[in-house]
Amino acid sequence: MKQILVKKNILGTNDEIARRNRALLREKGIFTINMIGSPGAGKTSVLEKIIKSLKNEINMTVIEGDLYTTKDADRIESHGIQVLQVNTGGGCHLDALMIQESLNNIDIEDTNFLIIENVGNLVCPASYDLSEDMKVTVLSITEGNDKPLKYPSMFQRSEVLIVNKMDLIEYTNFSMEELYRDIKSLNENIKVFEISCTTEEGIKDLADFFKEKIKEKGEMKNA
Amino acid sequence: MKQILVKKNILGTNDEIARRNRALLREKGIFTINMIGSPGAGKTSVLEKIIKSLKNEINMTVIEGDLYTTKDADRIESHGIQVLQVNTGGGCHLDALMIQESLNNIDIEDTNFLIIENVGNLVCPASYDLSEDMKVTVLSITEGNDKPLKYPSMFQRSEVLIVNKMDLIEYTNFSMEELYRDIKSLNENIKVFEISCTTEEGIKDLADFFKEKIKEKGEMKNA
Repeated sequence: MKQILVKKNILGTNDEIARRNRALLREKGIFTINMIGSPGAGKTSVLEKIIKSLKNEINMTVIEGDLYTTKDADRIESHGIQVLQVNTGGGCHLDALMIQESLNNIDIEDTNFLIIENVGNLVCPASYDLSEDMKVTVLSITEGNDKPLKYPSMFQRSEVLIVNKMDLIEYTNFSMEELYRDIKSLNENIKVFEISCTTEEGIKDLADFFKEKIKEKGEMKNA
Repeated sequence: MKQILVKKNILGTNDEIARRNRALLREKGIFTINMIGSPGAGKTSVLEKIIKSLKNEINMTVIEGDLYTTKDADRIESHGIQVLQVNTGGGCHLDALMIQESLNNIDIEDTNFLIIENVGNLVCPASYDLSEDMKVTVLSITEGNDKPLKYPSMFQRSEVLIVNKMDLIEYTNFSMEELYRDIKSLNENIKVFEISCTTEEGIKDLADFFKEKIKEKGEMKNA
């Protein structure tokens, strides 16, 4: 597994670099998501389920953001997927320069689907464009349904919300009704998937959704 | 309930302001904790349990940090406790200036125990001294036992680790053995409490621990 260390951004603003990355990803027809969520929301588990569902038909690459350790990248690599670990050395989010350096360090010629797993943090990553097509927020049932109103930026800027650990809902006081009310008040167009990595509830629908988006992006390349 | 908005730090570095706050809190004999954890770890629930256990014998004040909303402060106020809401307007952590302004806006003459609930974030708050006697990290079972090694700074700098949602451990693959191994490798002296706000397991031990610390701090004032 490859691994890069983070250097300081001396090449331009985050948005400028994100624009350059985005042009490259468009040229190559690579559908890209930025997965965000609290520590322990289950981002890596969701990612593993997506990989298992799609790896026979789609070429995937994963960029794994973590403060330290290669624990998550090790989990992804065990599925036989190209993965690059980015360690921020304590930094609380990924930025576009880290993605630029990552793209220079991996082979993206055959990639159709690039998944960036951000540092576990529901606050800071909201402010950094990583050149993604979609921000995908993972919220787990055990975090409570009050999180969208308490951390609105992330939910306002996400195209997709994955509600994870649905199998635990009966042991909590999580209200799906309040969640939908709050999330729609922040972001009318957000697409919500209710899933469980334990029971596999909702995984197929989620994988099918991404498959369609990957196909659309690939067709744009050839258009 | 009082509420303050955050201004920019123009008065000195965080550490200088924290030193001044700390001198004031020492003079008044106020034992102070800085509660930190991911969104949804259960910080406010733990706080409510501590309040219920101690409010008949201890004068408590709570400073509630949130990006937006007064949801958590409303919950605390319902227990009849003095609470001040600090909204960071999107900011990812509290800092010493916010605590200084808070101390200017509340009556601390009779307070023996000041609890600061930080913004839900396992990364950024680790770097900011809020003048506390102890950093208290709340980690919930459903977040997974891999978090200490992935977010080491917070665990290295905490005097106390509260492992919350113990009632859910049977529905997860959380390993207490791995948790203790990892946490002790980062911070030999950290004190760990295993609790559940649902079953009340461990709450009394935790409350007794704080009661002893509050007494010690109060005695220092009179010494």
